[in-house]
Amino acid sequence: MVSKNQIKLITSLQQKKYRVAHQMFFAEGVKGIQELLNSNFELVHLFTTKNDFPDVAVASKTITQEADLKKITALATPNSCLAVFKIPEEKPIIDSGLILALDSIRDPGNMGTILRLCDWFGIKQLLCSNETVDIYNSKVVQATMGSIARVNVNYVSLNTYLSQTNKTIFGTFMDGENIYKYSLPQEGIIIMGNEANGISEDLEKIITQRLSIPRFGALQITESLNVATATAIILSEFRR
Amino acid sequence: MVSKNQIKLITSLQQKKYRVAHQMFFAEGVKGIQELLNSNFELVHLFTTKNDFPDVAVASKTITQEADLKKITALATPNSCLAVFKIPEEKPIIDSGLILALDSIRDPGNMGTILRLCDWFGIKQLLCSNETVDIYNSKVVQATMGSIARVNVNYVSLNTYLSQTNKTIFGTFMDGENIYKYSLPQEGIIIMGNEANGISEDLEKIITQRLSIPRFGALQITESLNVATATAIILSEFRR
Repeated sequence: MVSKNQIKLITSLQQKKYRVAHQMFFAEGVKGIQELLNSNFELVHLFTTKNDFPDVAVASKTITQEADLKKITALATPNSCLAVFKIPEEKPIIDSGLILALDSIRDPGNMGTILRLCDWFGIKQLLCSNETVDIYNSKVVQATMGSIARVNVNYVSLNTYLSQTNKTIFGTFMDGENIYKYSLPQEGIIIMGNEANGISEDLEKIITQRLSIPRFGALQITESLNVATATAIILSEFRR
Repeated sequence: MVSKNQIKLITSLQQKKYRVAHQMFFAEGVKGIQELLNSNFELVHLFTTKNDFPDVAVASKTITQEADLKKITALATPNSCLAVFKIPEEKPIIDSGLILALDSIRDPGNMGTILRLCDWFGIKQLLCSNETVDIYNSKVVQATMGSIARVNVNYVSLNTYLSQTNKTIFGTFMDGENIYKYSLPQEGIIIMGNEANGISEDLEKIITQRLSIPRFGALQITESLNVATATAIILSEFRR
């Protein structure tokens, strides 16, 4: 049984202002929830249609019907479980190694994919401009598959942060140096730009190394790569 | 003005059986439509809210209201134009260079991204198992951004096709050879597996070279990469 107040609270968490107000978010699906539990995210309450999650105290879980899950899910077809967690306090920025910085990434699917890529390639720090989609957005949480627990994410004014660093700041542009030939370090900041507009003009001025991913197809086409696939190629190239 | 019959026809094209029956598909948005027109896709009819596309004969276009576009669009918010095209006849398989083969890719967004990657990396031939999502699915067409016009796509029984080839057949697995260290040729077939199940058992038997994308993050995690981002990394590595 899910109460009216619970339904109201959980559905409100689909909006950022209510996540901020309540300092809570929710995740759906056994795997993602289990990873958040394993990573010491603080559980508020778990709703599940099965008698699973033996490690979760009885007081913190409700065994419910699928019809009830339908009232709180953000998915077209609900998973077998949904869990509300507290949003953890932001940790300090890890100011070493490779850092990925996102300049106004708006699509939750792209954000989730990029977070998984950070996790895969051992990028410990993700910096997001304040205009970037919230990582506790339910679609992002869904797309990250638990990576949210293993990558440190901070929202900052990129302009301010990057103006103060003495690290190399990388960005990809059509006229940059061939990423396959440039000797890439294991220290620095890589900026990925917005889906429609690329890297903003203000940030472009602060970039110290322009790179490019060469195109191998027909050369007259001014097509670009999707930001998540471009991130995959760039991180692979930095780490290989 | 869009007639009732036109609405019925166009909305039916969201389903594969009607695309097959009518041998038509549709695209939305100026850029994608322009690329299909430039690539000699045969236009059936164009619906647009603006007096644009000067090269399209008056008899082949209808200047319409946004309210009418809402009745035929597959998008939540319609674009300014929608065009119905004939599905071209399948061309023969280009049996040289690097070929990408998709084993039951189901997600239209992944399919669209992969087609764009083929275009970017100059992969001229995409082979799809018969279970793979249809490239004329409106969500795929939307995600390809015109790449559909530049990559040859054939639907085949992969099992039959791959059993007859003497090319090297590559697939990625956890236990494969490190893709960053293996000397990759510019000839061969790369298989990408289904989102949930990976490469099917039947096909795994025919693979002649197992590769792996090393993970750089925490090693205890059995997380995998999304198939589109894995394709990005693999094609980048083959072409670099």
